[in-house]
Amino acid sequence: MNQPQQMSPWRAKFHEIIFEADTAAGKAFDVALLIAIFISVLVVVLDSVDSIHEQHPRMLMFAEWLFTILFTIEYVLRLSCTRRPLGYACSFFGIVDLLAILPSYMPLVLPLLVSDGTPFLTEGPESLMVVRALRLLRVFRIFKLAQFLTEASTLKQALLASRAKLTVFFAAILILVVIMGAAMNLIEGATNEDFANIPKSCYWAIVTITTVGYGDIVPQTPLGRGLAAIIIVVGYSMIVVPTGIVSVELSHAKAKAITTQVCPDCSQEGHDSNAEYCKFCGGKL
Amino acid sequence: MNQPQQMSPWRAKFHEIIFEADTAAGKAFDVALLIAIFISVLVVVLDSVDSIHEQHPRMLMFAEWLFTILFTIEYVLRLSCTRRPLGYACSFFGIVDLLAILPSYMPLVLPLLVSDGTPFLTEGPESLMVVRALRLLRVFRIFKLAQFLTEASTLKQALLASRAKLTVFFAAILILVVIMGAAMNLIEGATNEDFANIPKSCYWAIVTITTVGYGDIVPQTPLGRGLAAIIIVVGYSMIVVPTGIVSVELSHAKAKAITTQVCPDCSQEGHDSNAEYCKFCGGKL
Amino acid sequence: MNQPQQMSPWRAKFHEIIFEADTAAGKAFDVALLIAIFISVLVVVLDSVDSIHEQHPRMLMFAEWLFTILFTIEYVLRLSCTRRPLGYACSFFGIVDLLAILPSYMPLVLPLLVSDGTPFLTEGPESLMVVRALRLLRVFRIFKLAQFLTEASTLKQALLASRAKLTVFFAAILILVVIMGAAMNLIEGATNEDFANIPKSCYWAIVTITTVGYGDIVPQTPLGRGLAAIIIVVGYSMIVVPTGIVSVELSHAKAKAITTQVCPDCSQEGHDSNAEYCKFCGGKL
Amino acid sequence: MNQPQQMSPWRAKFHEIIFEADTAAGKAFDVALLIAIFISVLVVVLDSVDSIHEQHPRMLMFAEWLFTILFTIEYVLRLSCTRRPLGYACSFFGIVDLLAILPSYMPLVLPLLVSDGTPFLTEGPESLMVVRALRLLRVFRIFKLAQFLTEASTLKQALLASRAKLTVFFAAILILVVIMGAAMNLIEGATNEDFANIPKSCYWAIVTITTVGYGDIVPQTPLGRGLAAIIIVVGYSMIVVPTGIVSVELSHAKAKAITTQVCPDCSQEGHDSNAEYCKFCGGKL
Repeated sequence: MNQPQQMSPWRAKFHEIIFEADTAAGKAFDVALLIAIFISVLVVVLDSVDSIHEQHPRMLMFAEWLFTILFTIEYVLRLSCTRRPLGYACSFFGIVDLLAILPSYMPLVLPLLVSDGTPFLTEGPESLMVVRALRLLRVFRIFKLAQFLTEASTLKQALLASRAKLTVFFAAILILVVIMGAAMNLIEGATNEDFANIPKSCYWAIVTITTVGYGDIVPQTPLGRGLAAIIIVVGYSMIVVPTGIVSVELSHAKAKAITTQVCPDCSQEGHDSNAEYCKFCGGKL
Repeated sequence: MNQPQQMSPWRAKFHEIIFEADTAAGKAFDVALLIAIFISVLVVVLDSVDSIHEQHPRMLMFAEWLFTILFTIEYVLRLSCTRRPLGYACSFFGIVDLLAILPSYMPLVLPLLVSDGTPFLTEGPESLMVVRALRLLRVFRIFKLAQFLTEASTLKQALLASRAKLTVFFAAILILVVIMGAAMNLIEGATNEDFANIPKSCYWAIVTITTVGYGDIVPQTPLGRGLAAIIIVVGYSMIVVPTGIVSVELSHAKAKAITTQVCPDCSQEGHDSNAEYCKFCGGKL
Repeated sequence: MNQPQQMSPWRAKFHEIIFEADTAAGKAFDVALLIAIFISVLVVVLDSVDSIHEQHPRMLMFAEWLFTILFTIEYVLRLSCTRRPLGYACSFFGIVDLLAILPSYMPLVLPLLVSDGTPFLTEGPESLMVVRALRLLRVFRIFKLAQFLTEASTLKQALLASRAKLTVFFAAILILVVIMGAAMNLIEGATNEDFANIPKSCYWAIVTITTVGYGDIVPQTPLGRGLAAIIIVVGYSMIVVPTGIVSVELSHAKAKAITTQVCPDCSQEGHDSNAEYCKFCGGKL
Repeated sequence: MNQPQQMSPWRAKFHEIIFEADTAAGKAFDVALLIAIFISVLVVVLDSVDSIHEQHPRMLMFAEWLFTILFTIEYVLRLSCTRRPLGYACSFFGIVDLLAILPSYMPLVLPLLVSDGTPFLTEGPESLMVVRALRLLRVFRIFKLAQFLTEASTLKQALLASRAKLTVFFAAILILVVIMGAAMNLIEGATNEDFANIPKSCYWAIVTITTVGYGDIVPQTPLGRGLAAIIIVVGYSMIVVPTGIVSVELSHAKAKAITTQVCPDCSQEGHDSNAEYCKFCGGKL
């Protein structure tokens, strides 16, 4: 048959191992990959601690480059064994996979672009590498995948169903935050540097309404404290409502069976367990 | 027919554009208005930051007067194209629309009244302009209006249904706050300036019971800490109950279909989707 | 008829006005009483503020004695017009009513007992007068009384039904608090004065688990912070469960119709709306 | 009958008193034991307060050794009167019972092992003794035991049923914490010592998302505060969902009748009320 989309057996085999988690080989690959991602994130996190960075500078740099090269090879393999490389490259995980390796190469490329050797972004790339943590979301593809996806889908469904209610509330809370911030700025602003401008007061209002309450910005006049007490009670009453909304929607949400298969054409997930063709591009699964 | 309420075609057209969001022209007007409101609020917020205020004093003043004049024109148009101007002027949005333009005119009018040129309220009017943020509530009139109003109505219904239960609780919590504030004042007041009087202690009790916990006022004696621990646990237990109440009521609340039409006579909203006459004044919709 | 419990018409009339809220006179009395209680609490609260206390010493003392005498007359009237004075005196509101007037008389009586004129409790009695706030609980007897009592009864029922589940959880949380306090004392105690002993550490654990988080006591070593992060997540997970329990029980709780009548014999409340005899002492209602 | 597992009447009697709570003698033993455990925990807690430790050094040491000897006798009795001592020794309560007495003996044993008399762990053992608090979990075995176990089982069931949903969320929150910590480290790290490295920033993210909000680590730049406000709102929205999940599962959970009998063979609990043989080892109950 002259189907141009027909992949060579080798590419099909690689696609199965790298993209799917249903076969033994595919699962083993995913587990190994996850461990590598986890360790690479740990390396970045530890590298940010000065004392550790100074004690083991070579080992950390070696580990960083090892993982960068590994992830680069994996990214190239993914691109070459999928039927539509562009589809994968533009999917959520495709972009995350690219972002996970880019920061390491930046110090090599930047000097070529910025010729005056400015120390711009010398610390940045290391922190940017934490984007690798997003790759950990692949964890849901391994253990009891179908069940996790079903659960995630139930939650998504519940959140979507209560979207309108939640939007009403978050919009109301946002307006409340601006009004309250301005009110506190008016009352406390003259005597208290903490409420000197409205953005700062709005930051205080958000920290207060969500009951985080750092305490770095606090009212100090009796009038300001009285208003703050009212804001706290009103804010608390309003913020308690979304909890109820989500609870109710969750009790209505029906779970839908979902497989973990990824379309070899467009790299989209979330296909129903009885689907034979991709619902996004029509390609055969 | 000799109906005195019959509006001229021009006024009816203006009423449709300015007050309704069902037609293309009406929706375009509302979107443009919302953007203007949003930017005007942003200007007020940014103007309150000293560094920005000093860098662009002319631009900010120009923007402020531009929006004030725009909103004044809009307010006059709204008054002139509705059948009963007083009804609109006394409605919630009518008052908000007026409050949104008044603060800008205050510095012009006040010197006439207060002849001695006192700098009273020189900073106030700017902050007062934030009342414009309330106009953002119009946002619900534009996108998927009917749905939002239905959801808001469901929430309102649930809150009304649980009003009695919530009142019982809030009254109990208020009494608890006064008793606890007095108890902490009695125990900590002698040695700890933070609890020197009962209003301050009540402020602490509110901040504590709602789990905001700023930390600007904290007990310091072992006895005070022991009592605070008890207050925290009791308060937490009490404040958790309203969440349950609202959840339960929400699961019982039934949504009622509502349109976004505004009565041309009395400017009241919330008419049922099958209503042909205003349920507040009997005027034809 | 020779019934010894038969009250004279005057006493019956007084009982109706003072104890019941069903008639116009009874309701008027209760509203007036509530306002008096509210103002008397306000006087005590304001009196605790030094600046106000120094500005109006005579007015505050006059108000204090006015309310004390009023409440004393009311207490004596209540005792004299009920069929069993001892039953009222030992009921919850009877004790609260007595406690509300005692602190004012203490400075008069104490010197007689403590002959050496020690300044003991010179500040105490004023704060103790806040017990008057408990009298505000009478508020539920006035507006829509039956409904409030029904709601309160629903809540009580829900809390009673989930008592066993809640006890399991609070016991587990208490044990958790002691274990966590000891663990933090072990890890942070040597270097951080904040965790110098276990009671202090337990206070920190309670403040943390309930998400109050004052920030007056915080871990400072990396190990302590790591443990604190685990404690926060575990504690948060545990404390979230009771909310769910109460929600579920509330949705099962059935409301029972209850009247606001008070037994003229034993001063007990909570009688069913179809009751003709007191269910506690058998007296006719 | 030549059953080797047949216990002598004395051992069977002791087993009933020590392990069961159904008979009067068994209940009396459990209540006495609980009081002893409670006092012993109190002694350890009070001993950690320096002022108390210095005032009553002899009394506290005497109490400590009294309880240690009592609990040692109890532990030996438990080992000798159960059919399979190893089964008890390896059960949850067996390990806790051993850990509760070990710390007291450590100062006696350690010098033999560590011959150079190092002051290592001189303070440790006292804090370790708080493990005794875990023994308080026995409290559920005494009052209305069957009911408590049923409730605990309902909760366990509800938590198990929502395990997958909760795992999805906690994994998502963990990834969120790492990403947010790195982002704040990138933005605030250069100017604010509080966010100097990623672990510290992650600690801040956990403290913030759970709304504990100590305030010991706070953003100080406008950009950092803006990001913090977004993190707070996103984190609050995410952390609110598990509450809904647990509420829903609790309303579905069915209680299962459970007895408080402990298997004399393997010391396992949680047998159904109609069970005649242990469901873990098959031994007769």
